[in-house]
Amino acid sequence: MSVPPVIEWRAGAVRILDQRRLPDAVEVLHCTEAAQVNEAIRTLAIRGAPALGVAAAYAAALGARRIQAPDGPAFLARLDRVIDDIIATRPTAVNLAWAAERMRSAARTPAGAPASEVRARLLAEAHALAADNELRHRALAAAGAALFAPGQRVLHHCNTGPLATAASLGSALGVLQAAHQRHGIEVVVSETRPLLQGARLTTWELAQREIPFTLITDGMSASLMRRGRIDAAIVGADRIAANGDAANKIGTYGHALAARAHGLPFYVAAPMSTIDFALPDGDAIPIEERAPQEVRGYAAWRWAPPDAPAANPAFDVTPHDLVTAIVTERGVHRPPFVDTLRRQDAAAAPADVRAA
Amino acid sequence: MSVPPVIEWRAGAVRILDQRRLPDAVEVLHCTEAAQVNEAIRTLAIRGAPALGVAAAYAAALGARRIQAPDGPAFLARLDRVIDDIIATRPTAVNLAWAAERMRSAARTPAGAPASEVRARLLAEAHALAADNELRHRALAAAGAALFAPGQRVLHHCNTGPLATAASLGSALGVLQAAHQRHGIEVVVSETRPLLQGARLTTWELAQREIPFTLITDGMSASLMRRGRIDAAIVGADRIAANGDAANKIGTYGHALAARAHGLPFYVAAPMSTIDFALPDGDAIPIEERAPQEVRGYAAWRWAPPDAPAANPAFDVTPHDLVTAIVTERGVHRPPFVDTLRRQDAAAAPADVRAA
Repeated sequence: MSVPPVIEWRAGAVRILDQRRLPDAVEVLHCTEAAQVNEAIRTLAIRGAPALGVAAAYAAALGARRIQAPDGPAFLARLDRVIDDIIATRPTAVNLAWAAERMRSAARTPAGAPASEVRARLLAEAHALAADNELRHRALAAAGAALFAPGQRVLHHCNTGPLATAASLGSALGVLQAAHQRHGIEVVVSETRPLLQGARLTTWELAQREIPFTLITDGMSASLMRRGRIDAAIVGADRIAANGDAANKIGTYGHALAARAHGLPFYVAAPMSTIDFALPDGDAIPIEERAPQEVRGYAAWRWAPPDAPAANPAFDVTPHDLVTAIVTERGVHRPPFVDTLRRQDAAAAPADVRAA
Repeated sequence: MSVPPVIEWRAGAVRILDQRRLPDAVEVLHCTEAAQVNEAIRTLAIRGAPALGVAAAYAAALGARRIQAPDGPAFLARLDRVIDDIIATRPTAVNLAWAAERMRSAARTPAGAPASEVRARLLAEAHALAADNELRHRALAAAGAALFAPGQRVLHHCNTGPLATAASLGSALGVLQAAHQRHGIEVVVSETRPLLQGARLTTWELAQREIPFTLITDGMSASLMRRGRIDAAIVGADRIAANGDAANKIGTYGHALAARAHGLPFYVAAPMSTIDFALPDGDAIPIEERAPQEVRGYAAWRWAPPDAPAANPAFDVTPHDLVTAIVTERGVHRPPFVDTLRRQDAAAAPADVRAA
């Protein structure tokens, strides 16, 4: 099956593969306005922290094409509202706000350009961000490939493949793919309730790449570890604080506690753009609370009573002391992360896309 | 809504409330042969360790009515096959085999009775077992009610209410109901993938009893504990080894590890018939592996690729050192369970139904 790109710019519009319909239907959303991209983000037609960064950039470029303004300052003021709307779609993934702010900055550098030039600059910036994202994920996958021994069975939560990164390689799944190409590994796929990204998306991506896997429910990981059927775990992240505390899809923290209880390594893989050096620890990471109906069933299917009260935090925070190492495009970072992450950041400052 | 009994004997047949259809449809299976009861057990139309004990007893009484044999020994030989088939339906819950063996024994005590008398004796024995089950669960709920302080938010996994016990009170949920009647508590309901007994059955039972609750996915418990939104946990059990290791619905062990990591009490509630003194520890408890399609979706709904390899262990074992106390109809038993459980067992031997 030929699969369309996760997101692409084509003929003045943004085309987004609708991940809500996968794996049973491959459909593409054709967005001609930023609001349509925002709706795709809110409803998780596109998701995954790095992919949200790319989507935010293209949404800003698309929004800029629609703005009619009498002069440059008015144009920029309206662009700011477009960008604020993009940032407001989802609060936890830092990549989204990071990419949107990069677009806001690009529109003003240099200042005083006419609207037509700003529009062209924003599209070029979005393309550059997407290309940069591609290179970073290739480097990340290569950096982490040696973490796993031949034949190891590695637990993975949610989806961190190309669908999540909008690159040809995933983050955590990119590492697993690289490890599999080296010497063969197996993936234990946690289904990831409530939205089932593991069951729907990760299984589909692994099958396409012929990487062996076993699907489990989220509650099975601890028991499989106790029975010696899981050797290690790796997950992505939506935001990592300066000390290494990592926000990721709800359920991650429980897997990390189980890994610790059984003496198994627990890795986090994410591009440097996921690290929020402004946050000293994970307590300040905003956790998105989503609608209760997502917990009462899945998609159009409901099995709980229709009025059952439900909690639906979309993310949890795994404290840094449960994390064996963090893999980025700069390499494998070991504790204390407050030193090793910042040192990487400082050392590479000239090439850091956030300083561009 | 008036709800039919979980299981009842009426006019020479066994009527079973079909729990697969709850909460959206209330339907009753009318079983005129033991094989129909067995099928209801295998497909989880009736489930829950204590309810399986009652179902096994009535299945044996029903099977005995259908046996045509030339003499007493031939009758008993055929009854043995009926009972073996009942025991083979599900391996993990010890109550099922325990009740079936009690029926086998009743058929032979005293020996040499004519078939008609054995049939009557088996039905009387099944009724006695059901009545005894009712009394034990009332005692169990009362014994555990003081474990929770007013207003505490208590995590509960799977379903242990009347639907699981075939009594007017549940085991773990019976304790929570008694605690709520005393001074008010709240229940955090873990949905319990793959078969969603928490989302479908526990929510429904709590709503009927006006006990406040919040439904969560299985992967949310650790994060809610970390955020101070869960104060304690209580679960049922399908089989408890002599040292207190407890087999229960898959996902229990992960909740127990999370409770330990956050310093929260973790209780197990089950009738004494759940304790298998023949097993020194939980390693020897047989764990039922169910069909992979249960993990690929729910009921007729599927979201994973149709051929996705999946593991489906129905139970896990929580080691005794993670268990704060075990609640039975005899009281609240604290560690070391190898002493406190056996002492209870020995002390009450004359009244022990297993010795009857």
